[in-house]
Amino acid sequence: MNALLLAVAALAQAAPAAEKPRTPTEIIAQAPASAWKAIPADDLLVVELRTGGRVTIQLAPEFAPVHVANIRSLARGKWWDGAAIYRVQENYVVQWGNNESDKPLPAGVVAKPPAEYARPQAGLPVTPLGYADPYAAGAGFAHGWPVSLYADGQASLAHCYAAVGVGRDLSPDTGTGGELYAVIGHSPRHLDRNIALVGRVIEGIEHFTTLPRGTQALGFYKEEAQHVPLARARLSGSDDRFQYLDTSSPSFAAYVKARANRQDSFFIRPAGGVDLCNAPVPVRRVPKS
Amino acid sequence: MNALLLAVAALAQAAPAAEKPRTPTEIIAQAPASAWKAIPADDLLVVELRTGGRVTIQLAPEFAPVHVANIRSLARGKWWDGAAIYRVQENYVVQWGNNESDKPLPAGVVAKPPAEYARPQAGLPVTPLGYADPYAAGAGFAHGWPVSLYADGQASLAHCYAAVGVGRDLSPDTGTGGELYAVIGHSPRHLDRNIALVGRVIEGIEHFTTLPRGTQALGFYKEEAQHVPLARARLSGSDDRFQYLDTSSPSFAAYVKARANRQDSFFIRPAGGVDLCNAPVPVRRVPKS
Repeated sequence: MNALLLAVAALAQAAPAAEKPRTPTEIIAQAPASAWKAIPADDLLVVELRTGGRVTIQLAPEFAPVHVANIRSLARGKWWDGAAIYRVQENYVVQWGNNESDKPLPAGVVAKPPAEYARPQAGLPVTPLGYADPYAAGAGFAHGWPVSLYADGQASLAHCYAAVGVGRDLSPDTGTGGELYAVIGHSPRHLDRNIALVGRVIEGIEHFTTLPRGTQALGFYKEEAQHVPLARARLSGSDDRFQYLDTSSPSFAAYVKARANRQDSFFIRPAGGVDLCNAPVPVRRVPKS
Repeated sequence: MNALLLAVAALAQAAPAAEKPRTPTEIIAQAPASAWKAIPADDLLVVELRTGGRVTIQLAPEFAPVHVANIRSLARGKWWDGAAIYRVQENYVVQWGNNESDKPLPAGVVAKPPAEYARPQAGLPVTPLGYADPYAAGAGFAHGWPVSLYADGQASLAHCYAAVGVGRDLSPDTGTGGELYAVIGHSPRHLDRNIALVGRVIEGIEHFTTLPRGTQALGFYKEEAQHVPLARARLSGSDDRFQYLDTSSPSFAAYVKARANRQDSFFIRPAGGVDLCNAPVPVRRVPKS
């Protein structure tokens, strides 16, 4: 055996066994406690169906402060007590509120909020997605949210699956927040920068997605008897505590990379890329200590 | 008034009134009969739930000929009579068949089909999407299907909402086609080139999307009693006739452009782009003459 071969053999012996890349699930499970950020109770809206189903929505005050303040006032003012889901459009949205009723807005609700469809990127701690985006100059994550990034320096929340937005009529109406919708289909990002997004469903979305589809135009239910009644929607008490994975953390960067390059044993050809809405920001209940 | 201003005024007068851009819906409604292509009855698999719900799937023999031939043999051999939906995973897939049963495969079914995960772009009449794709070198449409286009000259069907694929175990198993799934969430394109896609749901997907979600890992139902029984799945007779919008037609090009630049009165800021799965190929029942 010549010297070179000996050297190569020694090298092979010294090299550690190739480490199996971690799956996205493993990365989330192994993320340190410091990578998780608490979601304030005031940022949690719990929608209760009269059937008992509970849907928890995380609000995004960093992106739509006036609309989020409205939603808090609406919840405290019992706006959604006795309200209903009146629209379920296949591959699109579920929508609820007091559509076309003359129920007065609770105290503190701004009747004509500004168009909080985008905000400056300046001041946002943006982690770029790292892959091409078909809709905007770029895409990334900030404060735990998926964002579309525009060439004019603006950023908007992105209409990903489970995103929650504010129903409105034609512009300049922006909606009060009293009528809300959640995305239940392929992410309709053509709506970005055209509606105020205010949050996302983080638990219980199956109570929305399994509802019968409305048969009228835009998925509205034909008969009022088909409406799905809500018991109420309230800001969370201290019992429901959730955390999201800090989108500025190394764990989150590793998670996105693993989503884009799936190495789980099922996969044969990793894509080498991922779209903004196919790397959902991990959210969990606070582990019991 | 100086000469330049006069010239500008004349120009303004001569210009035709700006035409209101057509919406995607208007473009589809106005597409000439020649832009619609018939779907052969042998490319239509009708899945009937025991509850009476009917889900119609268009098969894609251009992309997975051996698997599609298997599916036709399975349908003729009554493979899905008495089969069931046993997996419904939120924001992912519905899956059905005779999982873990020892029901023998009907005659003509190839037990170990080749890995029809991609095919050469050569020979495909590709219409490029025209916008960036996060997953592949490009994206487009061919034979009425959304396709991912790779730098190595291959093309694959894309895992868009409603796509139907072949359940499999780990490679080199590719699945017979006996166990099928349909996408019911944000398009999981990381699966492109990793599974054989064989078609898409073109009618009745709400019978899948509204099913209760399974609570076990990967959305499998915990109890067999929760399984959703199928009456049967058969190739269509001549009664169900569908057409798709020719993806090489000018109407389709106008449709994609309008999806990327929404001008409907609701929209304030058109995106100027669209992702492959947010421009679903229009399919309709053949209009009654």
